[in-house]
Amino acid sequence: MSSSRRQMHLGAFFFGVGHHLAAWRHPDVDPGAASSIESLKAWTRIAEDAKFDAIFFADNVGMPGPPDEVVAKNALWYPLDPLITLAALSQSTTHIGLVATVSSTYLPPYHLARKYAALDQVSQGRSGWNLVTSGSDFEARSFGLDQQLAHAQRYARAHEYVKIVKGLWDSWEDDAFIHDKEANRFFDPARLHRVAHQGEHYKVHGALQTPRSPQGYPVLVQAGSSGDGQDLAAATAEVVFTAQQSAEAARAFYGGLKGRLPAHGRNADQLKILPGISPFVGRSQQEALEKFEQLQGLIDPVLGIGLLSTFLGNVDLRGYDIDGPFPQDLPVTEGWKSRQELFEGMARRENLSIRQLYEKVAGARGHWTLVGTAESIADQLEHWFSTGAADGFNVLAPTLPHGLKDFAELVIPELQRRGLFRTAYEGRTLREHLGLARPVHPGARHRPRAHR
Amino acid sequence: MSSSRRQMHLGAFFFGVGHHLAAWRHPDVDPGAASSIESLKAWTRIAEDAKFDAIFFADNVGMPGPPDEVVAKNALWYPLDPLITLAALSQSTTHIGLVATVSSTYLPPYHLARKYAALDQVSQGRSGWNLVTSGSDFEARSFGLDQQLAHAQRYARAHEYVKIVKGLWDSWEDDAFIHDKEANRFFDPARLHRVAHQGEHYKVHGALQTPRSPQGYPVLVQAGSSGDGQDLAAATAEVVFTAQQSAEAARAFYGGLKGRLPAHGRNADQLKILPGISPFVGRSQQEALEKFEQLQGLIDPVLGIGLLSTFLGNVDLRGYDIDGPFPQDLPVTEGWKSRQELFEGMARRENLSIRQLYEKVAGARGHWTLVGTAESIADQLEHWFSTGAADGFNVLAPTLPHGLKDFAELVIPELQRRGLFRTAYEGRTLREHLGLARPVHPGARHRPRAHR
Repeated sequence: MSSSRRQMHLGAFFFGVGHHLAAWRHPDVDPGAASSIESLKAWTRIAEDAKFDAIFFADNVGMPGPPDEVVAKNALWYPLDPLITLAALSQSTTHIGLVATVSSTYLPPYHLARKYAALDQVSQGRSGWNLVTSGSDFEARSFGLDQQLAHAQRYARAHEYVKIVKGLWDSWEDDAFIHDKEANRFFDPARLHRVAHQGEHYKVHGALQTPRSPQGYPVLVQAGSSGDGQDLAAATAEVVFTAQQSAEAARAFYGGLKGRLPAHGRNADQLKILPGISPFVGRSQQEALEKFEQLQGLIDPVLGIGLLSTFLGNVDLRGYDIDGPFPQDLPVTEGWKSRQELFEGMARRENLSIRQLYEKVAGARGHWTLVGTAESIADQLEHWFSTGAADGFNVLAPTLPHGLKDFAELVIPELQRRGLFRTAYEGRTLREHLGLARPVHPGARHRPRAHR
Repeated sequence: MSSSRRQMHLGAFFFGVGHHLAAWRHPDVDPGAASSIESLKAWTRIAEDAKFDAIFFADNVGMPGPPDEVVAKNALWYPLDPLITLAALSQSTTHIGLVATVSSTYLPPYHLARKYAALDQVSQGRSGWNLVTSGSDFEARSFGLDQQLAHAQRYARAHEYVKIVKGLWDSWEDDAFIHDKEANRFFDPARLHRVAHQGEHYKVHGALQTPRSPQGYPVLVQAGSSGDGQDLAAATAEVVFTAQQSAEAARAFYGGLKGRLPAHGRNADQLKILPGISPFVGRSQQEALEKFEQLQGLIDPVLGIGLLSTFLGNVDLRGYDIDGPFPQDLPVTEGWKSRQELFEGMARRENLSIRQLYEKVAGARGHWTLVGTAESIADQLEHWFSTGAADGFNVLAPTLPHGLKDFAELVIPELQRRGLFRTAYEGRTLREHLGLARPVHPGARHRPRAHR
């Protein structure tokens, strides 16, 4: 296949021991694997061998609950800090991108900028930052607050935060470190750019000691699909990860978000949109269905209701009939607004009960579930990809590593046969895999003698 | 050698491309090596092959200066975030301990606890945390303040910080994750211990999602030698790194600090004291002296004065005669108190000029400088070690990797011949290398049926 043909981008999203709510109870799954670096290395090896663009970690900065008796039914999804984990995994891999979620809400921007600059250095240009804001009270309590910040306030802060972080990543021009031993100049002071930021939410004066990194800065990823989230993404994101249930809705989202880019002086190629998918892959349709139903049968209703409650902004669903009509009068909260709308829309359109809704979203928290053979799944992905609904997909394996292995061994070869996915890495950095340009340093851009 | 004989503990302290102020200008030194993971891996390999207990990274969370023209004469000492670097190095090593400095001043305790819990997991029990407080205005400015916090306030906050962090590391008892698929219990809620802390400086309610780590928690290291620093160390530290210029002063410090332990219910073996050393090793005394003088000859007076100024709390020394008597009327500041006293004491006792003082401390910022053959250096280390002045040493190589290599290839074999240092690792964790017990979980300690 010619490399000039447009190809999909694929992420391998690691989440506990799999995205399905009951993954840890599957007989083949090792429930403790997500906190074992040896397991994580093996999973990453599967993804790199299959030529995924990147692995991807979500995150929470807190321990859910109480009540602990309910929380105890669930696997812990984020047993290891994602940045530390990716720094470790950078040394067992050579090409695959390394994307971590880090919330901007409770970490000073200087720390984030510095840790990512280091990750981009130690991975030799393979890092990506998925910016989220923390939307749960249990996270707020880890940092001395009693409850989360309001949605609009979180995003106002995030806009300012990204600006500071990018400024810090541009502390140094690429050629600032001249290392002139004779003249005793380690760097050229004219190529050091200190940040002097005094905004509504943050004040930062300083610079990193870290040289500008191989990618310029990490690939900027976002997952917020609310209005506030799309505003932020249009201004700054290079990859957007989103939950979409139909090709139609995905196309509307894709067109809408790409349409916002010109207002920010950006073109459509500068932002890649990757809906999440939850694939159950079988060698036959029947085998795929059996895999799906085996996991569905392991869902504990208490957890199913808890999952809905979390995504609806911690509303209390316990007073409602689990098999009666889905309640219409739930309060609007300051939690995860886009997911709240998605779930309520699904229930309304399809007339679902509470049980039916949680069964529908238990596989991957509202992401598109595909149950089928490699061919039928490739057909559907190709349809979305070729009709303006997606630039690729983030793969939420129901179980780890088995669900990921199924996708890598069955679906990816089918996509490759169709010329829709790479058979070898052509570049070395995550930006190269994604077809994103390395950002030119603002100082270099305006320096006449550099001719850039 | 019998392993029951008391042996030294040795740290390999990485700092820029060497501790000497002029290290980067040495003809053999690659000035950019400290931001290259490949170089750092090679240096760490030297240290692990030589059986050092640990490598050790210092840190600053800011960019010194302005004036940038002066700063530009210096190498950057902390080009990469230490935790990210150690997470990467954990995968290229198998035994050596990994100690990073992280300031408690500007990082919320939840983040610190969580990142270290992950580092102890991915390194399989080899992490150590050197707790410092940030004592410079340029760091304060990275985090929205105009100047550093007062010394006493920094330490009051640090006491509270350590308590919270240790509480978070004890979120889970060792056997909390029962993974009972049938009963649908991922963990035993009775073995989850949420922190509920409301103190003068911090408020934290929560728990980590990270299982209790291989070492229970990272080895707690401290370097504060002021009165406030010693109080904190006696209460919580397991290793203390200190700058001492004479065996006599080192013995006084050693005895004094160990004498503070019983008041905290601790015994002398639970805290190891490692003075820093700056070794210039030659195959002959003459060769050692030449190595020393080659570097001394490269010191820029502007930097020498700047170094003193920094360690004296940013006092302005530019108005004084560089070759006149050392000024007696310098103000007491809120900076690094113990180092300020050490430097002023040296100048007073030895009647040094400003130039003589900076030449004396340029090798390792006030740590003990040894210039000689392997045998003469081993003699001096043995003397300190066997007369109650040290449990071992933190080795501040003047240049990296050359100074470290000299020590590893020449001094360590001599120490091994004398039975003063291990010839092979006997344990796998840093606690095992240091002879420190794995802390028993407070919950398990009080649980009758565990019989611990």
